[in-house]
Amino acid sequence: MRTIFDLETPAVLIDLDVVEVNIERTQSLFDGLGIGFRPHVKTHKIPFLAELQMKQGAIGIAAQKISEAEVFAAAGFTDILLCFNLLSPAKIARLRALTQTCHMTVVADNAAVVRALSAGMAGAAAPLDVLVECDTGMSRCGVLSPQAACDLAQVIEAAPGLHFAGLMTYPAPGAAPKVQAFMAQAQDLCMASVGHCDVISGGGTPSLLDAGLAPILTEYRAGTYIYNDRSLVARGACTLGDCALTVLATVVSRPTPTRAILDAGSKSLTSDLLGLSGYGTILAFPDAEITGLSEEHGHVTLKSGADMPEVGQKLQIVPNHACPVSNLVDRVTFHRGGKVVREVEVAARGMVV
Amino acid sequence: MRTIFDLETPAVLIDLDVVEVNIERTQSLFDGLGIGFRPHVKTHKIPFLAELQMKQGAIGIAAQKISEAEVFAAAGFTDILLCFNLLSPAKIARLRALTQTCHMTVVADNAAVVRALSAGMAGAAAPLDVLVECDTGMSRCGVLSPQAACDLAQVIEAAPGLHFAGLMTYPAPGAAPKVQAFMAQAQDLCMASVGHCDVISGGGTPSLLDAGLAPILTEYRAGTYIYNDRSLVARGACTLGDCALTVLATVVSRPTPTRAILDAGSKSLTSDLLGLSGYGTILAFPDAEITGLSEEHGHVTLKSGADMPEVGQKLQIVPNHACPVSNLVDRVTFHRGGKVVREVEVAARGMVV
Repeated sequence: MRTIFDLETPAVLIDLDVVEVNIERTQSLFDGLGIGFRPHVKTHKIPFLAELQMKQGAIGIAAQKISEAEVFAAAGFTDILLCFNLLSPAKIARLRALTQTCHMTVVADNAAVVRALSAGMAGAAAPLDVLVECDTGMSRCGVLSPQAACDLAQVIEAAPGLHFAGLMTYPAPGAAPKVQAFMAQAQDLCMASVGHCDVISGGGTPSLLDAGLAPILTEYRAGTYIYNDRSLVARGACTLGDCALTVLATVVSRPTPTRAILDAGSKSLTSDLLGLSGYGTILAFPDAEITGLSEEHGHVTLKSGADMPEVGQKLQIVPNHACPVSNLVDRVTFHRGGKVVREVEVAARGMVV
Repeated sequence: MRTIFDLETPAVLIDLDVVEVNIERTQSLFDGLGIGFRPHVKTHKIPFLAELQMKQGAIGIAAQKISEAEVFAAAGFTDILLCFNLLSPAKIARLRALTQTCHMTVVADNAAVVRALSAGMAGAAAPLDVLVECDTGMSRCGVLSPQAACDLAQVIEAAPGLHFAGLMTYPAPGAAPKVQAFMAQAQDLCMASVGHCDVISGGGTPSLLDAGLAPILTEYRAGTYIYNDRSLVARGACTLGDCALTVLATVVSRPTPTRAILDAGSKSLTSDLLGLSGYGTILAFPDAEITGLSEEHGHVTLKSGADMPEVGQKLQIVPNHACPVSNLVDRVTFHRGGKVVREVEVAARGMVV
């Protein structure tokens, strides 16, 4: 039986036992709340894992780019929410093609997007479902007020080829009460003017345990929860033992008593800090700090006097942010408790367009 | 004629006119110094560009991982320096296979690496050239003193299947005088004990213009100079006009008068900061700051009152660090002054092992 320590490094490892627990626990949470759960596939980018999520009761999936959605539609998924403003005629033509096999929902937060979607859907057999993206505190995309949401909903509903399907937000962590207030007011306004507002979609792994504070949601999107990562451990959202994705690296140099160099740098761990100090937690040496990354080297500062990793030793690292790690490798290795199960292609890696 | 603004976004663009100037200027610099120039292919990962570098007079190429070296050996390159400690028998077997068609040189900074290389080269027709990696101030890999370099040189020379070929360093920026002093002393010691020390390999784009301060070097490795990037502009090593690689992105949302959201995030610009503020320079709006990145969104803060980008507008961005951008996309688009020449595969993308 091959173990993970037989693998060439760096390697991205996925502990399937942990994945299964994470999927079941989160689906049960939303089942209990009576809120539909829609996993975001950007974290894993692997149809097999999305199938596990659907089998456990997910209502569909979320994707961030049209190219990601295409990979999952080709793999047989039939309900995809694309959480990104689409503008280009070419992308909207691809979206329209997906509607032949798939219930596609998209978002818009401005009239230019609505015009582009409407132009691309002209003459379609069925109107396209469009959600109004609302900014409930993240300061990214989204209309800024319930009234603005209602105004855009009317523009969507009046646009040929489009159907106003509801509201969507990606909230800042801890914003569940604000989501509830914003969405309730926006829904009331939309009901009064458009006459319907079926979907209220919230999301985010960091706030997942607060989802009950926004009972107005009809569905919840989360991606990272399937793997978890060091940033979520730091937020108290999970423990290190809940982290399914690790990067296996080899110590290739020990130049000084307190310095170790790994063969994993920003090309496998990413340079995402997410407000943290250091670039990951080394499971066997939790006191060591990954103080710097070159592209191919990880720079580890060791506490002197502690147990020390030797040249050639392989170490498992929980990265700060799991999602971009998935995007850096063609394949990941599934294992159960360290025993290799199989290698799997990251089918939607590199889907930036 | 298609222009870059006809492309779907995000897209990684390479201005071939700028590339050609960058290659010629740097090769001329080293020709003038009488130092061999060995471009590092980690920046572009594209055999066609390495061919341009060779045609201009490069002595060979440098790669960082065995999988990168394999891509370039398969493309016909016959002199490759692999600047990374190799330990695993599987990787060293792949290295040995490359020696059939290619003059391979590798590095070592510790005895465990020398033992592994020697074991893997046992019985080979010709010994493998090994350089001792020296730490001249970067605090990454490398032996710490000229005496330690000499000691390891003797271990290499005595190891079956290996030949001590000289010294290598990746210096900290501005360390050329230190490189000169360290290498001169180490070379003297090696000459006295081993009897030869042919190659003295230095490198780094940030210090490239200081290469004349370390005339002991027989060769110089640099990668980023072919594209340049915002970090090199900030160091005064080049101007924005010398930057060949840009990321084309579309404004997808303008939620407030001072906020624009792009369809390029850390999945195309990378989260590398390299000590800078912001994640890139928008050529058309140099006063705007890319203050944050999500995976698929760029968060731009605009100066109010200035010209403003509109939803749908496409913008060229010079990223902080060109090399990891190459690693994020399957293809880049070559252009000349905005006119599209062709799409090219990034053949050595994702070669982490």
